[in-house]
Amino acid sequence: MNFSSKLIENAVNEFSRLPGIGKKTALRLVFHLLKQSPQEVSEFSAAFTQMRNEIKYCTRCYNVSDNTLCEICSNTKRDSSLLCVVEDLRDVMAIENTNQFNGFYHVLGGIISPMDGIGPKDLNIEPLVSRVKEGEIKEVIMALSTTMEGDTTNFYIYKRLSGTTVKISTIARGIAVGDELEYADEVTLGRSLINRIPYENSLSVR
Amino acid sequence: MNFSSKLIENAVNEFSRLPGIGKKTALRLVFHLLKQSPQEVSEFSAAFTQMRNEIKYCTRCYNVSDNTLCEICSNTKRDSSLLCVVEDLRDVMAIENTNQFNGFYHVLGGIISPMDGIGPKDLNIEPLVSRVKEGEIKEVIMALSTTMEGDTTNFYIYKRLSGTTVKISTIARGIAVGDELEYADEVTLGRSLINRIPYENSLSVR
Repeated sequence: MNFSSKLIENAVNEFSRLPGIGKKTALRLVFHLLKQSPQEVSEFSAAFTQMRNEIKYCTRCYNVSDNTLCEICSNTKRDSSLLCVVEDLRDVMAIENTNQFNGFYHVLGGIISPMDGIGPKDLNIEPLVSRVKEGEIKEVIMALSTTMEGDTTNFYIYKRLSGTTVKISTIARGIAVGDELEYADEVTLGRSLINRIPYENSLSVR
Repeated sequence: MNFSSKLIENAVNEFSRLPGIGKKTALRLVFHLLKQSPQEVSEFSAAFTQMRNEIKYCTRCYNVSDNTLCEICSNTKRDSSLLCVVEDLRDVMAIENTNQFNGFYHVLGGIISPMDGIGPKDLNIEPLVSRVKEGEIKEVIMALSTTMEGDTTNFYIYKRLSGTTVKISTIARGIAVGDELEYADEVTLGRSLINRIPYENSLSVR
């Protein structure tokens, strides 16, 4: 594309470096910003630099936080015997939105992925082992993606925690609520048979 | 959504004010930025403030430009007897990409839209009339959207230029190249019959 201005070209290029945003969408966004007041655009820009420069991570669960201890970790009403291991902030938010979990979290900051060069040392696994060894946690719930990388990470952490008395579980894999059986893949359907649950636990609205 | 950080929440809100970006996409973009270096994020942000603060408009055609006269207006090899009237920068880019137009442009900066409170006075119509009255332009090609607003703007400009000797044309409305007749709407098909063209002009590759 031939832009009539280097400034526009630069802004379009910056937008299109974001995931899922192509040149055309980027141009539409740039256009939107051009119609905003300079004040609004400077607020827009400031939000990202400020976030990147000032963001902190909770020293306990490694979730992003404005303080040294995040809101969840500093909540004394939560169940300290339950620890949910997740990949990143989005998973914490997703689980919090279910209102079904009242324990604490541990954010790994990624999953083991040799293809991307991410090994156990790049993740917050050592602090997890230390947390478990403190003894207060009774159950570690692995809530990672059901992918090869997720399974590998589950297995690595399972091995690392095998010397402790903590119970290790993973979130259930099965047919999603609302899904029809005939469209489910065989692996998922097979797993949902093996890991069948008592009827009274199956009601989606509790 | 419950974000664990005000900084994240602020950044997500800024992204989701862009057209076509919801909270979930915004969070994905914010996540991407969190993984970039502070240097990269500050370049990202600077691109938009710099663009908004330093952008100039060509004093002749009102296209965005880094100088007082844009690249197209300062090109002496173009045909000064042809003037193409468009809504905004994106239309200039679209027409330039066809390589079928060698004249100059006039960017209105919008179209007449009473519903949005945009009247003729909010657009660069007076400078257009002045340009035409200079006498060098022989033909004004209206290249606006084929909407009610586009038609209204076409008509308003047609009336304003009626006292001059300039020829006024609009871009052809008809069946898009590659489209099948049976799926075309009646109005477009009807117009394409009325405004039929000599066979030798109909070849899409020239």
